[in-house]
Parts: sequence; C-alpha cells; structure tokens
Amino acid sequence: MPKDMTNGTDIGIFERRESAARSYCRGIPAVFTAARGSILTAQDGSEYIDFLAGCSSLNYGHNDADMKAALVEHITADGLAHGLDLHTDTKAGFLSAFERHILVPRGMDHRVMFTGPTGANAVEAAMKIARKSTGRTNIVAFTNGFHGVTMGALAATGNGYHRGGAGMDKQGVTRMPYDGYADGVDGAALLDQMLSDASGGIDAPAAIMLETVQGEGGLNAASGGFVRKIAGVARKHGALLIIDDIQAGCGRTGTFFSFEEMGVTPDIVTMAKSISGFGLPLALVLVRPEHDVFGPAEHNGTFRGNTHAFVTARVAIEKFWAAKSFETELAGKAALIEKRLTELAALVPGAFLKGRGLMRGVDVGSGDLAGKICARAYEKGLVIETSGSEDQVVKVLAPLTTPVETFEKGFDILLDAAREILDMTRIAAE
Amino acid sequence: MPKDMTNGTDIGIFERRESAARSYCRGIPAVFTAARGSILTAQDGSEYIDFLAGCSSLNYGHNDADMKAALVEHITADGLAHGLDLHTDTKAGFLSAFERHILVPRGMDHRVMFTGPTGANAVEAAMKIARKSTGRTNIVAFTNGFHGVTMGALAATGNGYHRGGAGMDKQGVTRMPYDGYADGVDGAALLDQMLSDASGGIDAPAAIMLETVQGEGGLNAASGGFVRKIAGVARKHGALLIIDDIQAGCGRTGTFFSFEEMGVTPDIVTMAKSISGFGLPLALVLVRPEHDVFGPAEHNGTFRGNTHAFVTARVAIEKFWAAKSFETELAGKAALIEKRLTELAALVPGAFLKGRGLMRGVDVGSGDLAGKICARAYEKGLVIETSGSEDQVVKVLAPLTTPVETFEKGFDILLDAAREILDMTRIAAE
Amino acid sequence: MPKDMTNGTDIGIFERRESAARSYCRGIPAVFTAARGSILTAQDGSEYIDFLAGCSSLNYGHNDADMKAALVEHITADGLAHGLDLHTDTKAGFLSAFERHILVPRGMDHRVMFTGPTGANAVEAAMKIARKSTGRTNIVAFTNGFHGVTMGALAATGNGYHRGGAGMDKQGVTRMPYDGYADGVDGAALLDQMLSDASGGIDAPAAIMLETVQGEGGLNAASGGFVRKIAGVARKHGALLIIDDIQAGCGRTGTFFSFEEMGVTPDIVTMAKSISGFGLPLALVLVRPEHDVFGPAEHNGTFRGNTHAFVTARVAIEKFWAAKSFETELAGKAALIEKRLTELAALVPGAFLKGRGLMRGVDVGSGDLAGKICARAYEKGLVIETSGSEDQVVKVLAPLTTPVETFEKGFDILLDAAREILDMTRIAAE
Amino acid sequence: MPKDMTNGTDIGIFERRESAARSYCRGIPAVFTAARGSILTAQDGSEYIDFLAGCSSLNYGHNDADMKAALVEHITADGLAHGLDLHTDTKAGFLSAFERHILVPRGMDHRVMFTGPTGANAVEAAMKIARKSTGRTNIVAFTNGFHGVTMGALAATGNGYHRGGAGMDKQGVTRMPYDGYADGVDGAALLDQMLSDASGGIDAPAAIMLETVQGEGGLNAASGGFVRKIAGVARKHGALLIIDDIQAGCGRTGTFFSFEEMGVTPDIVTMAKSISGFGLPLALVLVRPEHDVFGPAEHNGTFRGNTHAFVTARVAIEKFWAAKSFETELAGKAALIEKRLTELAALVPGAFLKGRGLMRGVDVGSGDLAGKICARAYEKGLVIETSGSEDQVVKVLAPLTTPVETFEKGFDILLDAAREILDMTRIAAE
Repeated sequence: MPKDMTNGTDIGIFERRESAARSYCRGIPAVFTAARGSILTAQDGSEYIDFLAGCSSLNYGHNDADMKAALVEHITADGLAHGLDLHTDTKAGFLSAFERHILVPRGMDHRVMFTGPTGANAVEAAMKIARKSTGRTNIVAFTNGFHGVTMGALAATGNGYHRGGAGMDKQGVTRMPYDGYADGVDGAALLDQMLSDASGGIDAPAAIMLETVQGEGGLNAASGGFVRKIAGVARKHGALLIIDDIQAGCGRTGTFFSFEEMGVTPDIVTMAKSISGFGLPLALVLVRPEHDVFGPAEHNGTFRGNTHAFVTARVAIEKFWAAKSFETELAGKAALIEKRLTELAALVPGAFLKGRGLMRGVDVGSGDLAGKICARAYEKGLVIETSGSEDQVVKVLAPLTTPVETFEKGFDILLDAAREILDMTRIAAE
Repeated sequence: MPKDMTNGTDIGIFERRESAARSYCRGIPAVFTAARGSILTAQDGSEYIDFLAGCSSLNYGHNDADMKAALVEHITADGLAHGLDLHTDTKAGFLSAFERHILVPRGMDHRVMFTGPTGANAVEAAMKIARKSTGRTNIVAFTNGFHGVTMGALAATGNGYHRGGAGMDKQGVTRMPYDGYADGVDGAALLDQMLSDASGGIDAPAAIMLETVQGEGGLNAASGGFVRKIAGVARKHGALLIIDDIQAGCGRTGTFFSFEEMGVTPDIVTMAKSISGFGLPLALVLVRPEHDVFGPAEHNGTFRGNTHAFVTARVAIEKFWAAKSFETELAGKAALIEKRLTELAALVPGAFLKGRGLMRGVDVGSGDLAGKICARAYEKGLVIETSGSEDQVVKVLAPLTTPVETFEKGFDILLDAAREILDMTRIAAE
Repeated sequence: MPKDMTNGTDIGIFERRESAARSYCRGIPAVFTAARGSILTAQDGSEYIDFLAGCSSLNYGHNDADMKAALVEHITADGLAHGLDLHTDTKAGFLSAFERHILVPRGMDHRVMFTGPTGANAVEAAMKIARKSTGRTNIVAFTNGFHGVTMGALAATGNGYHRGGAGMDKQGVTRMPYDGYADGVDGAALLDQMLSDASGGIDAPAAIMLETVQGEGGLNAASGGFVRKIAGVARKHGALLIIDDIQAGCGRTGTFFSFEEMGVTPDIVTMAKSISGFGLPLALVLVRPEHDVFGPAEHNGTFRGNTHAFVTARVAIEKFWAAKSFETELAGKAALIEKRLTELAALVPGAFLKGRGLMRGVDVGSGDLAGKICARAYEKGLVIETSGSEDQVVKVLAPLTTPVETFEKGFDILLDAAREILDMTRIAAE
Repeated sequence: MPKDMTNGTDIGIFERRESAARSYCRGIPAVFTAARGSILTAQDGSEYIDFLAGCSSLNYGHNDADMKAALVEHITADGLAHGLDLHTDTKAGFLSAFERHILVPRGMDHRVMFTGPTGANAVEAAMKIARKSTGRTNIVAFTNGFHGVTMGALAATGNGYHRGGAGMDKQGVTRMPYDGYADGVDGAALLDQMLSDASGGIDAPAAIMLETVQGEGGLNAASGGFVRKIAGVARKHGALLIIDDIQAGCGRTGTFFSFEEMGVTPDIVTMAKSISGFGLPLALVLVRPEHDVFGPAEHNGTFRGNTHAFVTARVAIEKFWAAKSFETELAGKAALIEKRLTELAALVPGAFLKGRGLMRGVDVGSGDLAGKICARAYEKGLVIETSGSEDQVVKVLAPLTTPVETFEKGFDILLDAAREILDMTRIAAE
C-alpha cells in the first residue's frame, strides 16, 4: 500500500499528479466523500458545516432530496446524459419552468442561450453578443470585477493575479471605478462624462458589464441608485447593460435575480453556479430577443446544455421559486447573518460588514487575519473562505437552505475562531 | 394544452425561448427522451442509430451500464455533486486510474489540470500556460484548426463563421498551412524557415498547437511525419508542442491518445468530450511538470473537476483501457468503417475518404450534397452530421462501442440515403 | 489658362488632386506665398497677422533673419541636406548648443534621440522606450490628451474623431481623467488607488504620459500640484514619466520646457514643432541615460535628424535661450495676452480663459460661436483657430516674438470680430 | 578646448548626448560637412563616393544645383518654411508638376495626401485608409518586408530586431511568404487558397501591402508575375493593393514608380525618401479617389507638406521626369551596375546578385563578410552599406545621377576592398 494511502484513497496522487493550479484544497485539505444539505463529510468521518457552498454553486445545499430523486430516476431510465443542443424533454422541462416561474412573473422576454457550462463561457458569449449586436468592441467593466479567466472574460476581470496568468495583454475593456470605490468619485457620472466628451478617450462601448455585488472582489454591493445610473448611461450611449449574476443570482441576495428590486432590466444576464440547483455544470445567457444575434452554432461548444443539470434545475425552480415563501425565508436568514456578522465585526477594531442579502462578510482589515480566522474555523469544523483584493474579507456563502440552528452553530464556530485568533495575536504582541 | 404540446412536452418552448444560436436541433428536430449504447429514442418512440456520438463525447455510447451503476450509487450515497477543487475520493479515484492505465504505460510524467469543463477552457488554459512558461505570446495554429470559440481559443480557430462571431479582432496567433493543405507546400518546413529567418516576420512562438486529425475542419489527418516535423520545429525554436486531443483522443483514432504511434510526446495535451466516459462535462490539460507554472487558482473556475464525471471517467478508464483488448476491437471496427465508407465514396464521382481510425468521413465535393445525404439518413433513422469548411464531408463519429451489426445497419441506411439522393439529383438533372 | 488659374497658380489643383484629409486650408482658403515674423502674405497681396504660428511650430515667427541667413549660408556652401544619422558638424553644433543652454542649466543629464521628424514619431519612440525599459506594456494617458495619429500614439490620443480614423482597435493605453476634468475627481489619486489595489484592474504601467497644457484638447492647463502628484504615482509604481512637450515646449508657456517650474524632471520628454526654430520638420526625444535602451537603429527612419533643421535649431537656441532676457519678455507678453483675452471673455456670457503662458484661449461655450469668431477674424486679416473637444475654445498661439503692437492689432481684430458676431447673433435672435 | 574637439567640432558630444539608437555613424564615423552630387566631404577634407545616397533619399545626388538655386531663392524671398496644410503657391507648383509629369502620363487618377514627413507615417496613413475604406482590419504583409517602426507600420515590418523594439505585441497583420521566399511555395497562390477557404483562418483583408523590391529586406525583387497575381488576389477578395514605393520609387528601379512595367495600378502608393528630390523630409500617399476616405485632419500632423521640400520636389519632377531621357540614362547605369556587381559576385564562392534596376547588391553569404567588405571600402573612400535579414547583402544605392566615371571609381574601390578582405580571410584560414 502506498504510504499516502488513507482509508483506501491514495491521497499522494494529488501532490503527484494534480496541477499546482489547485487551490481550495490547500487551505481545506480534508478528503471529502459525502455531503448533504449544509454538511460536508470527510473520509475520516468528521463533519464540516459548509459556509462556502461551492462558491455559491450550492445555494440549495448538497444533494437536495427532490433533485436527487429526479436525477436518479432520469439516469435509471436511460435519460440522456449528453445531448449536444438537440431537443430533449428535459431541456423543454427546464425552459418551461424557467419561463413560467422566473421570466414571465418578472416581465422578461429574454431568450435563453445555453453556453458551455462555465460562468466564463457565459461571460464570453455575453461580450460577443454585445459586440456583434452593436458593432462596437469596447466593454466597460469595473474595479474589483470578476468575470472569469478565459481571454475575453479575463480582460474584464480586475484581479491582477488572474490577469497576469494570461501571459499577454488583454484587450477590448475599459476599467471604471465601481460604486463606492474611491472617495468622492461617482463612477457612473465619470463614465457618462468621458463617454459624452468627444475627446474623453473612451471608445463608444458595446456594453457596460457589472455584478451588483462583487463576490470575488470583496463583497462590494452596489446601490440601486448606482445600478440605475449605469443603466441610464448604457442607454444614453447605445451600450447594452450586462449584469453578471453568476454569483449573486439564484437567490443569493434574497431574490432570484440580484437586480430585481433595483428597477432595471438588463439587456443580457449571465448565470451559472447555482442555476442547476445541484452543483452540476450549467451556464446560460439571458438575452433580449432583439440582441439574440448569434447564428446557429456561431457560439458553440460540446457541453452546451447539460442534460442531467436540466433535470435538477427544473426541480430547483419549481421547488423554490414557484411561490414567494422561499424569498420570505431568505429575508429572515439574511437578518440572522447580519446580526451574527455584526458580532464578528465588533471583535475586530475597524472591521465592517460587506455585501448584501445572504452574500455577506466582514472586512477585518488584513488578509493575514482573515486567513487565520478561516483556518481556525476549519479546524473547528467550519468550511469558510476569504474574498477581496487582499483576501481581507471573511466571506459567508452558506447554502440558502441552511437551517437556522446550523447557521447559528456555524457562526458560533466562526466567532470562537475569531476570538481565539485575536487572543493569540494579542498575546503575541504583548 | 398549448398547441405545441407533444406527448406532454411543450416543444414550442424552443422556438419561443431558446436562443437562435441552437444548431444541431435544426437538422435533427426530434425531441429525444432516452438513449442507450448507440441508439437514441425520441419522444414518439422512434429510434435512431447514433453516428454522431455527441461529436465524439460519447465514445463509449450512451448510458454505459457500468458507469451508470457507479454514478447512481454515488448519487444515492450522497456523494458530492460539486466539490470545487477540493480533495475528494472520487477525484483521487480518477487520477489514480488515469495514472496507472494511461500515463504510466505511455511513459508520461504529465500533471493533470482540471479546467472549467469545456474544451475551450482547456485550450485557453493550455495557451496561457505556454505563454506564461515561455514569456512569449505568439501561438502557431493551422488552417482548418478548431479549438473553441472563447476569445483566446477563437484566435486559434480557423473557421471564419466562428471568428466573425467575436465581433472584434483576435490576437496572439499565427496561421500556417496544415499537412497537405496546399499542393507542394510543406507547412512545417515553411514555418521553420520563417522562424529561422531574422526577418521572417513571425514572432518567436510560445507554442505550436494542432490536432492530429482536424475533426471540425473536415477530418484532415496529419501524417506522423508532419507531426514529428512540427515537434522538431517547436523544440528547435523553444516553443511548446500542444496537441489538442479533445475530439481525436479517448480512443477515437484507435489508441487512447491520437498521437501515440507518432513518436512524439507533447508538452501539453488538451482533453474534454469523451474523457468523462458518460458525456458529462469534464475537461483537463496534461502538462509536463516543468511547464506546470500556474499558481493556485491562477486559472480558476467553479466547475473545475466535475465530481459526477470523475465517477464515470474512472469506470471508463478501468473498463476500456486497463487491457489491450479494446484497442484490438477498435482496429477491427476501423477497418469496417473504411470498407463501408469506401462503398459510399464509390457512389459519388470524385469523392474520397478522410480521417483516421474511427474518425472517418467522405468528402462528397459539396456541402449541399453532404447535407442532403445526412438529412435523408436522418429520415431513415440515422443521426449523422457533416464537417469541413464547406460542410462537404459526411462524417462518421459513432460510439466506439457500437456493435458490428449496428454499424452495418447504420451504414446500410447511409448508403441507401446516398443512393436515393444521388438518384433524385440525377433525375432532376435529366 | 485653366479657369482656376490665379496669379499664375492653378488653385484648382487642390480640389482636383489633394486628399480630402486637408484641413486648415478649408477655413483659411488664401494661397500664401510669403511670411515674415508674425505676418503672412497671400498671393493677392493681402496680409494676415498670424495667431496660429503653425500650431506652435513657429514660436520664433516666420523666416527669422538670423536663422534664414544661417540656412542660406549652409545651403550655398553645399552643407548636407540629408545625412541619415551620420555625424555632421551641424548636428554637433545643435547638440552642443542644446547641451550648454538647455540641458546643463536645468540639471538634465538626458540624452537626445532624433526620431523621424514628426511629433507622433517622437511619441511612438517614447512609448516604445518606456515599454522596452520596464518590460511592461500599459501606458496611462489622459482625457483630452493629443499625442498623434499613428497607431501607437493614437492609442494615447483621446479625440474620438482621430481614434475613429484608425479603422481598428487601439491597444496598450489606459485612460484617466486629467487635472480638473471631472468635478471632485482627483485623477492622480484615483490612478494611485487603482494601481495600488491588487484588483484595480489597471495593469502596472510602463509610463504615465501627459501634456502639462493640452493644446489640442482645449488648452487645459494642469497645475504644478497635479503634475507633481502624477510624477509621484509614476515613481511609486515603477512607471516612467513622459511629458509630451511638443506643443507646450520651446517657450510656449514662458519657459523653455513647460514643466520647468513644477519641480519635476520627466524620465522622457518629447519635442517637435518649434524645436527647429524655423518651422522645419524635426523631432526628438530626451531620455534619461538609464532608459536609453534602444540598440542601434532599433527605432529607425530615414529622416531622423534633419540637417537643415539643425542649422536653424542651433541659431534658435543660441539667440533666444542663452540669456534670461527672452523669458522676461515672454512674461510681459503673457500678461498682455491675458489682459486682452479677459476682454474677449467679458463679451460672451459664461466664457472663461484657458491655458497658460502664451498658450491661451477663451472657452466661448460652443464650437459654432468660436468658429464664427475665427472666421470673421480671418476676413478681417487675422489667422486664428479653435481648439477643444467641441472646438469651443478660441485659441491664441501667436509667435512668441510677435511685437507688442502686432499683438494689440491682432487682438483688436479678434475683439471686433467677436463683437460683430455677437451682434449678429443677438439681432438674429430678436 | 575639450579633448574631443576636432576642427572646431566637439565630436565627443555624440557619445555624451546622442542616444544609443544612432546607427549609421557607428560604421561610418567621419564628421561630414558638405556634399555635392555623389561626393561627401568630411571635416578633415577627405572625400567619399556615396553608394548609400541616404538610403535612396538622394536619388538625384546631394545639393543638385537647380534645386539648390530654387530653394535659396525661395528662402531669400521669405517663402514659407512651414505652412501646415494651408494652400501655398509652392504646394500648387509641386502638385501641378506631379499631376502633369507623373500621374497623367501614367493614367493615374490618384489623389495626393501629404502625411507627416516620414515614410512610416505614409505607411500608417495607407493602412488606416485601407481599414477605414473596407471596414476590415487585417492587412497582409510579407516576409522580409520593411515598412517602418511606428506601431501600425511595425506590425507589417518583418524584421525581428525592429519588432522587438516595440516592447509589446503588434496586431492587425498577417504574414505571407514573398516571391521566391520558400522553395516551391507560391505565396500568392497560398494566400489565395487561405482566403478562399472558409476555414483558412486568415480574416478577410483590408489590404495586401508589398514592396516590389524589398530594400531593407535584402534586395529581394518580386517578379511582375507575382505582383500581378497579388493584385488579382486583392481584387478577388475585396482588398486594396498597397505598393510601398518609399525606397524603390522615384526612379530607383529605372522608372518613376517601381511597378510601372508590371501592368498593375495599386489602389494606394506610399512615397517618401527621394520624393523631395533634395533629401528634405517629405512623404505622401497616392490614393484612388474612391478610397480617399479621410475626413479633414482625420489623419493629421504638424509637418504635413514641407514647403521647402515642395520647392525642390517640383524642380526634381520637372528636371528629371518631364522627358524620357532620364529613364534611358538609368537603363544604361543599371547595366553598368549589373556588370560590376557580377564581377564582385565572381570573387565570392556562392555569391549572387540581388535586386533590380539601380537597387542592386550581392549576397556574399554572411553578414560578417559583407560588413568587412563595406568597412574596408569605407576606409578606401566609399560609403556603402549592407542589407538583408543577416546583413549579408552588399548593397549599392548610389545617386541615380552618379556620373559613369564616379560609378566606375566606386566599383573599383568596392572590388579592391572585397579582394583585400578575401585575401586576408584566406591567409587567416591557412
């Protein structure tokens, strides 16, 4: 038996054969074998509360019983696993549920484009659509925006570490300060001025693309006023408005779309992460019919429309979004999160809350401190991660379905971890 | 009941809500509900032999019994559906099987990087790795090459229709003629001369990237001599050799990798399509340790490493590649395909065979004729598609596991369809 | 005699054979035959006071007697007209005078690179030097900046009309708001924040490039404080500071360099326009020795170092810059210009002065009004042009050597023209 | 007196203050003070025969008596030195002469655009025109092409040393093999095939740009057949044909334009170098009226239309091109050059002649040998330079007006120099 063999698993294989690009497993080294709801189980039987939720890809928790049943039934009945972009009953089922429960009630006439099943692919498609539809190339993106790391999307991503990974220049994107980024600077007004000015030096944009809450960028939440202003700037200058709702959508902010209560209707919306409901790879672009300009397969890819994901996605829509009760439940949980994070912030001088809805965190001032708190929490049975340009934000992205008692237990762990780390820091400083 | 309701499925939903970018469903309009092995079943109960195999994503057929069982067991036991890039027993299981049955026997010390689960994402990662590792930006790609449609990959894709979809210029790629592309032009020698010449005007490349058989480009098969020459040119000029084995890999040419018998070991190999075995989204990059240069999450993405796909991928490797018997079986089927396609080619003046192994087709001289033959075959119960810059190639990409009798039946349909179309054409011309 | 023949000149030739790209001659259609000091003479004998000065290329007026004599002597003696970048006594003469009277007194150890004799070529060289020296590609430029229209320089130019002329995307430049551009926005502070932030989304710059007074952009004058802050941001982030002094240099702001009294020493300075003294094509780049990184001819061109221009440039330096008296004289004239433009501004509600030194103008609020005033002034014998993103600034760029009485006469014409236009506008409105 | 003072000239100034980018003066270190016809005079009184002619900028020799007289008269009469793009009698004079003696006799309806006075600026304008006129961005250029070093033009230049000077990627150009570049490769046919093929991977070009003889690239002369084929490919694919005649034009190949006897009429022609006749900076673009698409000043620049250069350019056109006698004289000199270079080639095993007309050279097989021969020739009183990607070609670019006896004397020196170097090499080898 190889020396790295643990409970039948050769864990040396990761070191030996997996690329150095692997990341989460570095801070969370357990070998996971099962998961249900908000609980992850490792190979040694230890359990962890999940405040990471696959970076918001598991908004309905792990292995939801209804989705699981539907998926097993589908597979057992030899339902298609892979159908290219052929018609299937499962795709029709998802589209119908999405139309009925999501689009129609929100007055959206958007069409659904299934892209390759990664958020980055949806973003690439959205950028291409905007460029093709407008005949322009420039896309305005924002400080701390994160949209993926393939070349087109990466141009829009602000993070310098990821940008550097390209090994070459990116093009086609102009960067502007996000809401609240720089004291006294209204990014929307500055953008409007530069675009209105014949010598502003910013080419007329195909689109303005933003997240309403910047998940990777540090849980920066734009105000409704800012988003409306941006929507106005886009309209005024003939640009499309793209809301990248990959992390903030699917209920994460308390409503299905993150922009619902802001009074704007984007021309294009990108979705991925939790859209399958079950954590399966699926991504899509919502696009107004007048901008649905791709010809057949003009943007193609083998895995467009993951049939298994359609099965679970339909269940997720029908189970959670057919009635208003889920939204009501989310509001309560958002209040709980705010209360407990306020307690956390109170422990750290200068710390403050960030984010919106169930996409919240605490900026503790340094990536070092945030990292230590998360590491200590992990030792105590809580999976939680940092966010922000300096990883200075302790980020809570729990499944939206997390029971209140589990939430409380997770926060108890988090606060204990924070207290222990702060005590140690205090002692070390004395 | 809505007027488009068929057997409980609202098929008007596709027209109403799915993006115009959908494609395969246009020529193959059936609504599919189940599939097993090489047979697809539509909602109305009709069956189709599958000579498309999810564009080579279903090399082991639909719903292979062993993979299916393993997957259902995994789901039933609350195995993870989504694990970011955390350690899981399923990932370890796949990596161990891949190491033992694929890498070690072929003397490859490559590391495995799980990228976002699309082929394009693997290609983007490969291009970024080459650029980061060499500090150069130029990548040489070839006429008729197809590598995906996200901005980085699209620069390397030759197809003008897809290139146009970007709505902007692509950068970082130099195009060269592929093996046999232009009479009397040795693309490898020309590339070598231009790179050797201080005024050749081609910047020193980070990589040379090619498919050994161009699947989308018309089933053009490069000779071993050409691939070896290209490998030599890469080595001579300090460039990495990237083999894009997304379509041609996983046994499609008769061996696991398409380049196995050519005497070259690429620095980087991209894989997707059939790597999960079951048609589930999964993509990976094999990279030599010395070029495994990404830092943690430098190339990231939520769906890197699809846990369900790891389950089926492990079974696929163990079931088909642990012994030599599958390769032997493939050789027999390749001969069968060649025999039957030779019959097809004999029907059309000037037609000729293309491709290699089980990735074969017949160039019938025009996209119109090829399209008509495939459409007629579909009416008769065979799903088959065209390929090539003018869609002039009738392409056979059946599951590798297709039983001989099913193969024969499929070819019978194809030949009948061809005869009927040719007869009609002849009559129309008279 | 062709119908367009006037005084022996076939003026129809311009319409017939000169490209539609010609511009100044559209608003100033006279055919000029001679010029001396600040007076232009047309073919029909009419004279014009020159408040345009070749867009600041004739800071010492037309046909300065001393330069003229030296140039005629040089030509008569078969001095070289073209010497590539060979050593000539004339080049040595210019360099020695420039070293003694310009560089040494200002404590500048910069080297002189003669580029192709256009300002744009100097800017292209400066950008290339910064990129080669730092190994970075991004260059920060500003709203309303104008740096030329060749592809590298055009990326830095803000004007949308000129940018559009490229017919393709520009790359390698990030745009920031200039001093005073947007209310409440400190462009230097915003730039610093975005560069300091790991997710600011602006790649580390090779250089920050600016004009201290934006000549084409509307005579926007940066404060010394802003320029010093920018210099600090450049230093902090490892970027070179490039001052484009093509229009504002050679005494235009009252000192030889426009930045002399600001307490900064740029790493690179671009010069053209008046550097030859006589209006002959000459351009150069001043670069600190540690950034003089081009190898021999790495940036080349046939007309680098115009020998005739060296002759006049040497005389210009020795005649005007060997002593302080010229600067004193300029201060007086700057005061005169300010006084008279204040009178002009008083005529137009909301009008205000712009610029600095002898590079001044009045923003009259609309391009239409500014254009009419200049057109009327031309009819009355004054050549004067507009500037700014909407051409809304009446711009005075007279030869620095313009006698006081000529200045007054020119301003009398300008004010009369303004009054006439305003009267007409008033009457039309009633 | 500083130690570097020589005959009143401080030659240390070059080392001290001129940029390291200076080049010709490194191999030809004399300080030149005067020049007439084909003779250069250095400060110490020594004379040199000029076989470099300002890289073809002095086709009519130094200080031609008629041009000189006209220029001195112009200056003495206070003719304009700088006139922006205003109408002047001198510009009219040049345009009229150019129309009468050059354009009309050759049936060319082209318009003349005066760009910034560098060849690179003319190339940048030409590329922008093609892009704006066609709405496409790609421009096809060739191996060993040299078109200048500003960013737009540099993308088209093949030389890697110059390309590297940019410090960043170039874009918008596709490289193809020039006539005779690679054995068995017909660059025109390959280009046609790749453009005709929907998956050829070369975007539809705005223009194909080439020199008929590649001056910097090693005196590679395209055949008329190749140029006609390229013209046909351009026409077939909707691209403009740009002939860069900057070095090969103005009589250098024996006719005014280098393409005159090839049966093609380019859509755009770039000219610079000898167009002023006197070595003064001047550049222009000839463009067919239907492609004269720039708006006023859309491509601008201060020194467009050098007035002094117009004076001499008019004289040059009238003196040399009004009658056929000059062309006849050139044919004789071309024969002389060929004869003497054949003698040179006979001295070096494997050497062979290159070029066409009076733009000839000998490829001696190595840059080292060519450099030594030129250096020895310089010591003996002949200024001559190398060319080619490895500087392996001894290049003769004498003034076209060089008297036969001076030609013979120059060649005598060159052959003596070659013999001496070859003897030394032989002795060293023994």
